[in-house]
Amino acid sequence: MIDKFDEWKNAIDNNIDKLLDEELSTWKSADVKKSFEELKRLSKGGKKIRGALIKIGELLNGVDNDSYLPLATAFEIFQTAVLIHDDIIDEADTRRGMPTITALIPGHDGLSKAICVGDLGFFLSYKIISETNFSDSIKTKLIEFYTKTLYNTIVGEIIDVELPLKDFNYHLNMKDDEIYDIYMYKTSWYTFIGPLLLGAIAANMDDDKINSIIEIGLNLGIAYQIRDDLLGLYSTNDNMGKTSTDIKENKQTIIYKYAIDHANDEERKIIESLYGKELNEEDTKTLIDLFTSLNAKDNAERLVKEHTDKAINIINDSDFENKQYLIDLAEKLVARNK
Amino acid sequence: MIDKFDEWKNAIDNNIDKLLDEELSTWKSADVKKSFEELKRLSKGGKKIRGALIKIGELLNGVDNDSYLPLATAFEIFQTAVLIHDDIIDEADTRRGMPTITALIPGHDGLSKAICVGDLGFFLSYKIISETNFSDSIKTKLIEFYTKTLYNTIVGEIIDVELPLKDFNYHLNMKDDEIYDIYMYKTSWYTFIGPLLLGAIAANMDDDKINSIIEIGLNLGIAYQIRDDLLGLYSTNDNMGKTSTDIKENKQTIIYKYAIDHANDEERKIIESLYGKELNEEDTKTLIDLFTSLNAKDNAERLVKEHTDKAINIINDSDFENKQYLIDLAEKLVARNK
Repeated sequence: MIDKFDEWKNAIDNNIDKLLDEELSTWKSADVKKSFEELKRLSKGGKKIRGALIKIGELLNGVDNDSYLPLATAFEIFQTAVLIHDDIIDEADTRRGMPTITALIPGHDGLSKAICVGDLGFFLSYKIISETNFSDSIKTKLIEFYTKTLYNTIVGEIIDVELPLKDFNYHLNMKDDEIYDIYMYKTSWYTFIGPLLLGAIAANMDDDKINSIIEIGLNLGIAYQIRDDLLGLYSTNDNMGKTSTDIKENKQTIIYKYAIDHANDEERKIIESLYGKELNEEDTKTLIDLFTSLNAKDNAERLVKEHTDKAINIINDSDFENKQYLIDLAEKLVARNK
Repeated sequence: MIDKFDEWKNAIDNNIDKLLDEELSTWKSADVKKSFEELKRLSKGGKKIRGALIKIGELLNGVDNDSYLPLATAFEIFQTAVLIHDDIIDEADTRRGMPTITALIPGHDGLSKAICVGDLGFFLSYKIISETNFSDSIKTKLIEFYTKTLYNTIVGEIIDVELPLKDFNYHLNMKDDEIYDIYMYKTSWYTFIGPLLLGAIAANMDDDKINSIIEIGLNLGIAYQIRDDLLGLYSTNDNMGKTSTDIKENKQTIIYKYAIDHANDEERKIIESLYGKELNEEDTKTLIDLFTSLNAKDNAERLVKEHTDKAINIINDSDFENKQYLIDLAEKLVARNK
């Protein structure tokens, strides 16, 4: 079935190029063309997981044709656009192995360009959905849930951006919920529920099944995000070059929260002195070894398994068609090592 | 009829507050609440012209009830959001007499916040439209034209941001069209066509009348923008504090283009040496007096009258109801001195 995922990814990639080429030939201003070129350049190389989940959403209701393509294209162009804004916020120089817009165009001009290209991508994604051939009743529902997804994504982004700026005492006293809110809005809704729902709605799925999809996506998203957090700290070959970044950015994860909640005074002081700082290899090792000895790693792995199992149980208990695609993708995403 | 405009403005202002208060009570994260507070704070004080034009769009087809309110609220929240992004690009410290987000929160944190709050406002505006009570067929049409409007707005913004960065020689050799593209996308579509269309579509207007609305909005937008450009250079009491800003930002207007196109070599050198610079009072006077003597001012005033007359003729020749509201607003906007 992995072949199928590659097949969908290729179809989505080709459709993104085709659609952006159409925009490129529509507009005469060189600067507008340049903006579409940037959307095209930065859309390459992503895994297109969300596009694949739109296809799977359709398959779950027995629809197997190309009607997912414009939806997947819209969603993936939004993804490129929101990453462009994200990269301004994170002051990132590379994305998907390519230089970001602000890395290519230094100073304020690059910043202005990046804001505009992101905004353009947002509204292009709505344009694509708005121009699909679905019936008016399906289309209004698609727009409703697409909007809800993007809205939740930005809400999650806001919490994710602000939480690391609070002091250690705040982190110690906050509830796990504040972190689960980020997981739920920024990962569950954005990466799983939103895409699956778009496909399900396009395939005219019943409301009770839609509710199961939300439950499944919620759990898969939490499992996926905790797996991502684990890779961010424990990926031995530093596959994603993330370990130091996650620590430096004071990223709020359930691993970090578990560690500070279960540390004694002395251990807590060590974490407070290291987390959120730019660390050398030795200090990084001290910190993550401490997380491990506090069972923060085991706890996270347990949570990944718990939420994955829960999602797969709901899938198995539900009356969906072609369930195996979703189970395969879930296992692939949660078992990933990069 | 001016009373009516005030009445609509108050209704829109109240509805924006009500809606943002609802969001404020929905979300529990303090940082998310803060983002809605910022949308609320920065939505105050605007003229709400676009909201009024949505109401007028409905009136033109004989509908006179409160169905314009959610659409006007959505559009005006988008306006606040896009101004937040615009103010990052323009490095502005104040907006509507209030400090911008980046003025309140210095450094990178303020920039990140401003990007997120703008993005949040974009998707909130879609959420509001998506939750209206219109039929599915009207709603899909509303979303289609709303999206087209925002898309054109960003395209206009991109040209508007990039054109001043080109060199003098480029400006001399470009066609007037490049400036009219900014006027058409950023002003005609955004300030006139988009709002009028939303109202017209909500009121179920026929397609041939819709086409007249596009023609009317195109001309009103051009007239309005050239009036704005004139005020930017010639507002004697510097009502908008804009004269120096427009020159300093190298703003590309039809006044500037006419001047450089009709200047002799010596005059051209003076303009090239001054336009795009931060000028003292004397140099500012030299420059705008030169524009006047080259007939750039007269030409612009002629264009304002020409496009206004054209719009009003189409209104008068068309089979609309309640035409007088649109004529009044058109005259008010074009005759404005601030």
